[in-house]
Amino acid sequence: MLLSHVRIVGSGLIGSSIGLALVQRGVGVTMVDSDSGAQALAQDLVKSAPTGTPDLIILASPISSIAQALESEKSSPVKLGFMDISSVKTKVKVEVSTSGFDSARFLPTHPMAGREVGGAQSARADLFQARPWILDSAGVDPDLRLAGLEVISLLGAVAIEMDSRSHDEAVALVSHLPQLVASLLAGQLEGADEAWLDLAGAGLRDTIRIAGSSPELWKEIVAANSAAIAPLLTRLIEDSQRLLRGLSDEKVVAEVIAAGQRGRDLIPGKHGGQQRSYTYLPIVIDDRPGQLGSLFNACAKADVNIEDLALEHSPGQLTAVITLAIAPEDIGRLSEFLTKDGWNVHSVS
Amino acid sequence: MLLSHVRIVGSGLIGSSIGLALVQRGVGVTMVDSDSGAQALAQDLVKSAPTGTPDLIILASPISSIAQALESEKSSPVKLGFMDISSVKTKVKVEVSTSGFDSARFLPTHPMAGREVGGAQSARADLFQARPWILDSAGVDPDLRLAGLEVISLLGAVAIEMDSRSHDEAVALVSHLPQLVASLLAGQLEGADEAWLDLAGAGLRDTIRIAGSSPELWKEIVAANSAAIAPLLTRLIEDSQRLLRGLSDEKVVAEVIAAGQRGRDLIPGKHGGQQRSYTYLPIVIDDRPGQLGSLFNACAKADVNIEDLALEHSPGQLTAVITLAIAPEDIGRLSEFLTKDGWNVHSVS
Repeated sequence: MLLSHVRIVGSGLIGSSIGLALVQRGVGVTMVDSDSGAQALAQDLVKSAPTGTPDLIILASPISSIAQALESEKSSPVKLGFMDISSVKTKVKVEVSTSGFDSARFLPTHPMAGREVGGAQSARADLFQARPWILDSAGVDPDLRLAGLEVISLLGAVAIEMDSRSHDEAVALVSHLPQLVASLLAGQLEGADEAWLDLAGAGLRDTIRIAGSSPELWKEIVAANSAAIAPLLTRLIEDSQRLLRGLSDEKVVAEVIAAGQRGRDLIPGKHGGQQRSYTYLPIVIDDRPGQLGSLFNACAKADVNIEDLALEHSPGQLTAVITLAIAPEDIGRLSEFLTKDGWNVHSVS
Repeated sequence: MLLSHVRIVGSGLIGSSIGLALVQRGVGVTMVDSDSGAQALAQDLVKSAPTGTPDLIILASPISSIAQALESEKSSPVKLGFMDISSVKTKVKVEVSTSGFDSARFLPTHPMAGREVGGAQSARADLFQARPWILDSAGVDPDLRLAGLEVISLLGAVAIEMDSRSHDEAVALVSHLPQLVASLLAGQLEGADEAWLDLAGAGLRDTIRIAGSSPELWKEIVAANSAAIAPLLTRLIEDSQRLLRGLSDEKVVAEVIAAGQRGRDLIPGKHGGQQRSYTYLPIVIDDRPGQLGSLFNACAKADVNIEDLALEHSPGQLTAVITLAIAPEDIGRLSEFLTKDGWNVHSVS
């Protein structure tokens, strides 16, 4: 193990979660924050008090304070160098070079994990478990790179090499644009008749789920990555205008829906493979304790793995429909088994 | 019971599902379709052969064939009158009046249920269970209205009175606009680098889930309701343009995200109430048969009801995180119970 002492600058959700996890893996951690109360809370949380020169300094400040953190930390003694964890990478690289840092001693990274809540009090050592963690190690000192990879590995994340520009364009497409679209759509619901909103189904709810995200967090991310987001939002607006002009033309509408189908089919499914085809088995259950347990017990008895599931309730009703996603080869066996076991299984096409 | 014989014109998913359910409730059903093969399949499926004059004729054709169905059925003998089930209502009302129908003998309705697959072979008697079913009975003969309410009640749906114009504006907002936005967003993924798409998380996946819908079905719905959708799409484009102009201005971005939060909070949660606050409990499990069953058994033993749940897998990993949504008052008890029972329960803020 390369690391025995890591200094973490920034005691928010990400910094504290990294601290917690590193200490659990036997690494000494010093938590630092410009807010002395936050620093005390975080240091208390990670329960670690290493001494001497740290091997690595992790800058875990918000994007808006990276320049300031760089300035205050650039003379701190450190053996291998620095890494950061902010969601936008080209902006940070520019700040590193303008601040006079030796860029070989700075590893830009981005753990793709987070929560809808912030602060050290929300920290979780398992936050990065199995999540992608991007690093851009071009021109970076090999030992510093190995230290970064060790952090990623100790935290259970999956290291992915990507240059900063590609990273920023990638997250603009798969994370920032969807966030803005969900927020813009959900914003259209303000002022609508309550009786109309009562008709909303699972489709609308899923489409706007991430609209619940924090304005404080997202205003910084979007503004910092506006250069990569702007062309994507521009293209989306152009496509929307084309659709608006052809809204009563079935051919135009069909092509928009078909393009959406093709795009959706490109998103990988579980376990890193391409989207897998599951077969869906709807089962009507009573919405009370015990039903789900008995149902999944029955599935286990049938030795069938549940790949995904969705639970749908309806307004004013106490029954629910649970839809199990399973491998196509299991469908006949499971359906037969559950029906014999007395479950209200519905036919699938 | 008012109804002993119902004639259903249109043997697709909705018509056949209504037929199946009515026959299960003891009502005789004649299935009719302009395609003789489809008619034979549907009639075979519902297994009913009533004779004599039907009490009610249900027009269950696609929107594009409503005018034609009206024309071919308007002289059919029927005791109480007609109802339809199409997703857009003002267009149908116009077609009824221009076809010379007595509008008192025509009840416009819309069951808000469907599947991503079509055809009689996909029919399910429980398709309408607990779903809203809109009817516009202004000016409609009271006995015909009662017959419509009986169909809705026999099928287990929830009747909601709403005038056709409000209906069309409501579904434009809560169903048609979200569909188009999800499709437009998913369409932006075409041509993207595969490595970028690998970074997609649950946020993107949820936002574009309904982009998997059928172009054939949606081109008709959108074109038929384009008058109600156009102003909504126009406003969304304007909001998107305003955001684009202020994309690097944190204040502009924060307001878009905040408006989205407010809109999302307006959508009712389960059981017809306003969105309830749940507390979320993340648990790391092995992704293999039996784990979910044991977990839900444990929840039942703790006598805690699971209000909702989400299963998240990560690329290349065989562990999964299941997040249980439960009532806030149950969180302490369940967390303690599961931890004692040996589950890998994570802290919540």
